[in-house]
Amino acid sequence: MATLYRVTSAESREFGLNSGHAIGVDVGGTKIAAGVIGPDGSIVRSVRAATPAGDGFATQQRIVELVRELSEESLPIGVAVAGFINADQSVVSYAPNIDWREVPLRDNLEQRLGAAVTVENDANAAGWAEFRFGAGRGIRHMTLLTIGTGVGGAIVMDGTLVRGGFGAAGELGHLRIVPDGIECGCGQRGCLEQYGSGRALLRRLNELADTAPDGAVLASVRDRDGSLSADNVGPLIRSGDPGAARALDELGSALGQACASLTAVLEPERYVFGGGLAVAGSALLAPIRSAFTEAQPARGFRPVPEFVVAELGSDAGMVGAADLAQIYLQSQSTGK
Amino acid sequence: MATLYRVTSAESREFGLNSGHAIGVDVGGTKIAAGVIGPDGSIVRSVRAATPAGDGFATQQRIVELVRELSEESLPIGVAVAGFINADQSVVSYAPNIDWREVPLRDNLEQRLGAAVTVENDANAAGWAEFRFGAGRGIRHMTLLTIGTGVGGAIVMDGTLVRGGFGAAGELGHLRIVPDGIECGCGQRGCLEQYGSGRALLRRLNELADTAPDGAVLASVRDRDGSLSADNVGPLIRSGDPGAARALDELGSALGQACASLTAVLEPERYVFGGGLAVAGSALLAPIRSAFTEAQPARGFRPVPEFVVAELGSDAGMVGAADLAQIYLQSQSTGK
Repeated sequence: MATLYRVTSAESREFGLNSGHAIGVDVGGTKIAAGVIGPDGSIVRSVRAATPAGDGFATQQRIVELVRELSEESLPIGVAVAGFINADQSVVSYAPNIDWREVPLRDNLEQRLGAAVTVENDANAAGWAEFRFGAGRGIRHMTLLTIGTGVGGAIVMDGTLVRGGFGAAGELGHLRIVPDGIECGCGQRGCLEQYGSGRALLRRLNELADTAPDGAVLASVRDRDGSLSADNVGPLIRSGDPGAARALDELGSALGQACASLTAVLEPERYVFGGGLAVAGSALLAPIRSAFTEAQPARGFRPVPEFVVAELGSDAGMVGAADLAQIYLQSQSTGK
Repeated sequence: MATLYRVTSAESREFGLNSGHAIGVDVGGTKIAAGVIGPDGSIVRSVRAATPAGDGFATQQRIVELVRELSEESLPIGVAVAGFINADQSVVSYAPNIDWREVPLRDNLEQRLGAAVTVENDANAAGWAEFRFGAGRGIRHMTLLTIGTGVGGAIVMDGTLVRGGFGAAGELGHLRIVPDGIECGCGQRGCLEQYGSGRALLRRLNELADTAPDGAVLASVRDRDGSLSADNVGPLIRSGDPGAARALDELGSALGQACASLTAVLEPERYVFGGGLAVAGSALLAPIRSAFTEAQPARGFRPVPEFVVAELGSDAGMVGAADLAQIYLQSQSTGK
């Protein structure tokens, strides 16, 4: 656990940290990041620790320790979790990579920390951060797709984060794009996640290495390193290897086609792509745009949205959770 | 044009029609319906006329005449149109069944009628009416699918009608459910409309009549009447004819599977099914529920929404347009 600095009561009075500052915590399956976040989305300071993911109690204890490390003040706390959150944002119903099932995380943390806590899905928090401080600035309707191991999503409609009737809207990786398609971890088949995620890309790269003429370089890199991974595929994509380019084109095409369906439903002004694969930049965006344009219903009668990559990187969940905690407190105090 | 009654200034003072009353107009490809609507969604009186659909100017003139027939008062006017409406609800960008392309309908009608006019997509207006006064009462998150000749949609999220970044969100008939599927009027393939609409049902009924053993009764009814239609298929569905039941099951299954994808995105508490096929009631809802339950991602970890039929019938567009006109005026006056 690497503590950079702790905010003391004296400092917080001096720097005015209570006016608009909040603590954001991003709880992933492998690490927990926590930070003091300014009202402009700036990270005043932050700490990180490994997630004891197999132990639900220890994971909560680790969050408490990180928050105490960060600040003596009772700043509002927003916690982003990779899992389903219930509609009133208090309970983690299910977190696939953490030992949490129906955990009343808000109440548990409020009791331990003596501060107001808000719980949010991690992709929602990241999407909100991009909307407020990153690639979604200046518009009202944004859809985020995070392209990491899986595909996550967040929807901002008319300036408001969409949570749905039961708290788990925006699970865009589980839009079905192929009936009876590839089996998905959610128990269904043909979900976008199976065609548009980092894991899907690696599966396809391995298929090309096994069978396709343009997979020859992929096969030799795999032989050299033992397996294909983000580390050795990234350089191949940048150097224009035909096999790597083909797999990324297919991935972008699946995402672009899914966006055409999403546009029929949501019609965002802008799609923002985050997660690990966002580093591919225009190599990812070009096939997305092209497939979207091909697949858009009533093409020519409707504006085409923008497609951009996220700006806030892996800090987005922490920053968004803190900002949502502020907004939630304000809405409570104004009764809205 | 059958005028039932006209509201005079004296009457409107007597009955207080200005407090919360508005005029709703529903402009379809074949008829225009207009009515004075009370603040509780009640239809005080209404008039109807054929749509001169091939003549865009005459269609606007017909709206003006109907509104003047209804009331001497300058009540707010909401107009529901089967087409794309721009984001500030003033221009009909494109109406597939009326000769309107980029028509500034709001300004044209305001100049002629001297009252505030709001323009809305017809499915959105119908969805809003169901949310406020019909099958969506008492909840905050509702998705409407209208199953008529085509498939329309409307989304209410947290009590607000979703219009999207460019004014045409909720085109749920153009969610793609089959890659490279049946060709759609929108220029794409595999849209829900090609599997879940009245037209799709008739196509499938004819296929069964042509080829399937359980289409024998369908074939004989088609021979007797010259073609299959809502009029002669309805009784077959009610009587449990196996061919008709199979086609309706398949239609419901397509809709239920689409709802599973929509739930991943929107997570409504309740799906409401309107349009002509809603009369099938539980014969439509049962296969929808069944297919949804099969296809829901993370089944068992998320609540199952309700599936119900619409309550307001063909008046919904008119009623919803009037209510939205009131709300729009209120938001203008309070600056929200």
